[in-house]
Amino acid sequence: MKTLSSRKLVEQFGCLEFGDTKPEIEFLGIGTLEKAELSLLSFLANPKYLKSALVSKAGAIVCSAAAAEELSASFAGRVFTAKDPYAVFARISQYFFEPKIGFSGHSPQAYVDGSAQVHASATVFPFVFVGPGAVIGANTLLYSGAFVGAGSTIGADCVLYPNSVVREGCHLGDRCILNPGAVIGGDGFGFAPSGHENIKIPQVGGVRLASDVEVGSNSSVDRGAMDDTTVGEYTKIDSIVQVGHNVSIGNSCFLCGLVGVAGSATLGNRVTLAGQVGVAGHLSIADNTMIMAQSGVSSSMEKSGIYSGSPVMPHKDWLKLQALFRRILKGGNPS
Amino acid sequence: MKTLSSRKLVEQFGCLEFGDTKPEIEFLGIGTLEKAELSLLSFLANPKYLKSALVSKAGAIVCSAAAAEELSASFAGRVFTAKDPYAVFARISQYFFEPKIGFSGHSPQAYVDGSAQVHASATVFPFVFVGPGAVIGANTLLYSGAFVGAGSTIGADCVLYPNSVVREGCHLGDRCILNPGAVIGGDGFGFAPSGHENIKIPQVGGVRLASDVEVGSNSSVDRGAMDDTTVGEYTKIDSIVQVGHNVSIGNSCFLCGLVGVAGSATLGNRVTLAGQVGVAGHLSIADNTMIMAQSGVSSSMEKSGIYSGSPVMPHKDWLKLQALFRRILKGGNPS
Amino acid sequence: MKTLSSRKLVEQFGCLEFGDTKPEIEFLGIGTLEKAELSLLSFLANPKYLKSALVSKAGAIVCSAAAAEELSASFAGRVFTAKDPYAVFARISQYFFEPKIGFSGHSPQAYVDGSAQVHASATVFPFVFVGPGAVIGANTLLYSGAFVGAGSTIGADCVLYPNSVVREGCHLGDRCILNPGAVIGGDGFGFAPSGHENIKIPQVGGVRLASDVEVGSNSSVDRGAMDDTTVGEYTKIDSIVQVGHNVSIGNSCFLCGLVGVAGSATLGNRVTLAGQVGVAGHLSIADNTMIMAQSGVSSSMEKSGIYSGSPVMPHKDWLKLQALFRRILKGGNPS
Repeated sequence: MKTLSSRKLVEQFGCLEFGDTKPEIEFLGIGTLEKAELSLLSFLANPKYLKSALVSKAGAIVCSAAAAEELSASFAGRVFTAKDPYAVFARISQYFFEPKIGFSGHSPQAYVDGSAQVHASATVFPFVFVGPGAVIGANTLLYSGAFVGAGSTIGADCVLYPNSVVREGCHLGDRCILNPGAVIGGDGFGFAPSGHENIKIPQVGGVRLASDVEVGSNSSVDRGAMDDTTVGEYTKIDSIVQVGHNVSIGNSCFLCGLVGVAGSATLGNRVTLAGQVGVAGHLSIADNTMIMAQSGVSSSMEKSGIYSGSPVMPHKDWLKLQALFRRILKGGNPS
Repeated sequence: MKTLSSRKLVEQFGCLEFGDTKPEIEFLGIGTLEKAELSLLSFLANPKYLKSALVSKAGAIVCSAAAAEELSASFAGRVFTAKDPYAVFARISQYFFEPKIGFSGHSPQAYVDGSAQVHASATVFPFVFVGPGAVIGANTLLYSGAFVGAGSTIGADCVLYPNSVVREGCHLGDRCILNPGAVIGGDGFGFAPSGHENIKIPQVGGVRLASDVEVGSNSSVDRGAMDDTTVGEYTKIDSIVQVGHNVSIGNSCFLCGLVGVAGSATLGNRVTLAGQVGVAGHLSIADNTMIMAQSGVSSSMEKSGIYSGSPVMPHKDWLKLQALFRRILKGGNPS
Repeated sequence: MKTLSSRKLVEQFGCLEFGDTKPEIEFLGIGTLEKAELSLLSFLANPKYLKSALVSKAGAIVCSAAAAEELSASFAGRVFTAKDPYAVFARISQYFFEPKIGFSGHSPQAYVDGSAQVHASATVFPFVFVGPGAVIGANTLLYSGAFVGAGSTIGADCVLYPNSVVREGCHLGDRCILNPGAVIGGDGFGFAPSGHENIKIPQVGGVRLASDVEVGSNSSVDRGAMDDTTVGEYTKIDSIVQVGHNVSIGNSCFLCGLVGVAGSATLGNRVTLAGQVGVAGHLSIADNTMIMAQSGVSSSMEKSGIYSGSPVMPHKDWLKLQALFRRILKGGNPS
C-alpha cells in the first residue's frame, strides 16, 4: 500500500510545516475533515469549513497560510500550509489513486488492423477496434468497445473508457481522457437546405484534442466540415456536451454538463460555460469569460467578464432585472 | 399466446365488474379505445377520453368508479372499475408484454473475468465485458456491448441494453433498466483550477442505484469524488440526463429528458424535474416538488410546490410575470 | 484520384459558364475561397464573402447569376453560375468525398443470427450484432459495436457508425446515417405514477425512420408506447437530441443540438428547432415553422413563422421585450 511521508509532503508537494518541525510520519491516505482518522491527511481549502477542521480527527491538515494560525490554535494534529491547498489536495489524490482497470495486455478478442501501431505498453481490452494506420501511444488504455478509426492517433497515457469512439482522421494529445460513450469526430451538422432534400455536405475535417483534455461521458465533439474542430490543452468537457463542427476552443476552459457550442464558434482561454449554456455559431468569446448556467450567447463577447441570461447580458444587469421582476411580483403591475 | 380472463382481472388485478357479473371471458390483449376489437381490453384513465370510450368496440373497458355509470349507459361492452385505472393498465401491459430479446445463454464471444460471478440464469450476449469480481444477478440480461467493470454488482432481473456501461465499483439493485448507451460511473467533473493546468481530482466514489431504477438512453450518472452518487428506488431517469457526482436522489422521482443535476445536489422523494431543467450544485430540493420544463434551480427549495422559470419562482408568480409581459406587448411600454 | 471536368460541372451539376466558354479543364478537388489553388474549384454561396472571392486563387468559382458580373470583373479564374451554389457545393463535395472506412467484408468476429438477412454487399465490422429476423440492405455499413435488434430492418446505403444502436422492431429507410452512439428505439418514458412505485408501461411500439434521415452522435429517438415514433424523409437530427416516444416528425426538418421533443408531439414538414429548444408533449407545430435557440414550446403552433422565448412568442414580440428590458436597465425602474 502506498504511503506518504510528511517529508515528501514538503519536498515533493511544496507544503510547509506550520510551527516547529516535528518527527517524520507516514500518512496512509487522505480523508474528508469529518471522516479522516489519525493515519490520514486532510485538507482545508475553503475557509467556510474551518469549524469542521478545528474538530477534525485527521493526523494533519493542509491549509492556506492565512488559515494556519487559527487552525493550529485548536486542531490537535499537525498543520501544513500550501499556496493552493486545493491544488495540493488534487495532486495528493492522484498520488494515492489506484485505478481498478480490470484487464491487462492486448486481448486476442480485440481487432487491430495490421497497419496500426499500438505501443507494447498500451492496454487493449476485448472488443476494441483499431483501424488501419491508427497509432496508440505508450501506456494508453483502450477499454472494451473503444473504437479508433483509420489514421487516427492517440497520444501516450490516454484513457479511452468503454464504448468511447474516435472516428477516422482525429488526433488526441497525451493524457487525454474520454469517458464512456464520448464521441470524437461524429459528423458535423452541415446540409444545403434545398427546401426538400437537405443535401448533406460531407464532413471531411477531423478533430484535434491537445494534451490533457478530458471529455465527459456521452459528450460529442463533432468533426469539422473542411478544417478541424480543435480543443486546447487542459480544457475539460463535462458529460453530455456538444461541441459543433469547426469550433475552436482555447486552453484551460471548462464546459459543464449539457452545454452546446454551435458550429465555427471560437472560445478563448480559460472560458467557463456553466451548465446548459448555449453558444451560437460563428462568434467568439474572449479569454477569461464566465457564462452562467442556462445562458444563451448569441453575439460575440469581446470583453471578459461574467454574463447571464438568454440572451446574455452582464451578470450585474441580469441581477438587476431579476430584482425588478421580484419587486413587480410583490407590488403589482409596474404600469 | 397469453390470455387474460375476466376472473383474473378481478382476482389478480383488483378490478370490479360494474353492474351484474357476467360469464367469464378471455381477453387476447389490450388496445386503445379507438382501435381495440371485441377480443381486447381497453382503458379509460382520463375522463377527457370518455367520448371515445362510449363508441369503443373493445370487449371491455376498465375505468374509475366515477366514470362507470356514464360509460355503461352507452358503451356496448363490459365495464370494470379500478381505483387507479392507469396503474391497472400499466400492470396488464406488463402481463401481456413479451420482450423480443433475440439471444439466449452465455455467448462464447463475451468476455467474463474468471473471478466474476454471473448467475446461470442470466443472459450474456456476445461482446459483453464483465470485469474481475463483478457479480451479475439471476435473470439479468446483458445485451451486446454492455460493460460491467471490476467489482461492480448488478442485481437480479436487471436489463443492461446494448452499449450501456457500468464502470468499476458501482452497484445496481434488482429490476434496474439501463437503456442503450446509458453510462453509470463515468468520472465526475472535479478539477482544481490552477489558472492553467486544471488538475484532475480522481473520482474514487462510485454510484449506487437502488432497485427499480431506470436510466434512459445516452444518460450519464457520474461517479462520486469520494463518496457515492446515489439514486433511490423507483426513480426513473429519461434519455440524455446528466446526474453529477455526489448527487443524492430520493425515491420515486422523475427526471425528464435533457435534465442536468450538478454535483452534490440532494433531491427528496417524489421530485419531478421536467424536460431541460437544470439544478445547481450543493443545494437541496424538498419532497414532492415539481419543477417545470427549462427551469433553473439555483438555490435550495425547502417547500414543496410547483416552480417555474430561470431562476425558479413559484409557478403562479411565473404565470403572473408572463401575463404582464403579454400585456406590455399589447399595450406598449409600461413606463 | 477523382477529378471533375468543367464539362461535367455543366452537364452533371447544372452550372453555366459565365461569359465565353473556355477550353475544358480538370479540377482536382474543391477548396475554400481563401485556401484554394489554381487546380481547385471554389464556391461563393453567400454574397458577404464576395471580397474574398475577388482575390481568390481558385481556378474557378461557382456563384449565383446575380454575383457573376461583379465577381468576373476582378477574379482571375473562371466563373460558373448556378441557381443554388450552396447546393452545388454540397453535391460536388459528395462527388469528391472518399470515406475512410477502414474495414471491408463480413467480419468473423461479428455476430449475425442465422435467421438475419445481411446483403452480400454490406460491410460488417467486428463486434457487430445482428439479431434474429433482422434485414440489412445493400451497401450498408455496420461499424464496430453497431447493434441491430430482432426483426429490425435497415435499408440500402445506410451507415451505422460505431456503437450506434437500433433496438428490436425498428425500421430505417435507405441512405440513413446513425452517427456514433445514436440510439434508435430505447424505451420511451412511460410510467403510471402510483405515488410510490411508478409502474413501468412496456413500450411496445417501435421507431420508423424514412429514407435519408440522419441522426447525430449520442442522440436518442425513443420507441413508441403502443404505436411507432416516426421521422420523415430528409429530416436531419443533430448530436445529443432526444425525440420522445410517439413523436411524429415530418419531412425535411432540422433538429439542432440538445433539442428535446417530448412524447406524442407532432412536427410538420420543414420545421427547424434551433439548439436547446424544448417542445412539450401532445402538441403540434405547423409546417415551415422556425423555433429559435433555447425556446420552449408549450402549446401548439398552428401558424408557421419564427418564434422565440420560453414560453415562445412571435420572434418580433420577443425582440420588443428584449429591447424593453435593455431600456429599463439603462433608464432605471419603469415603475
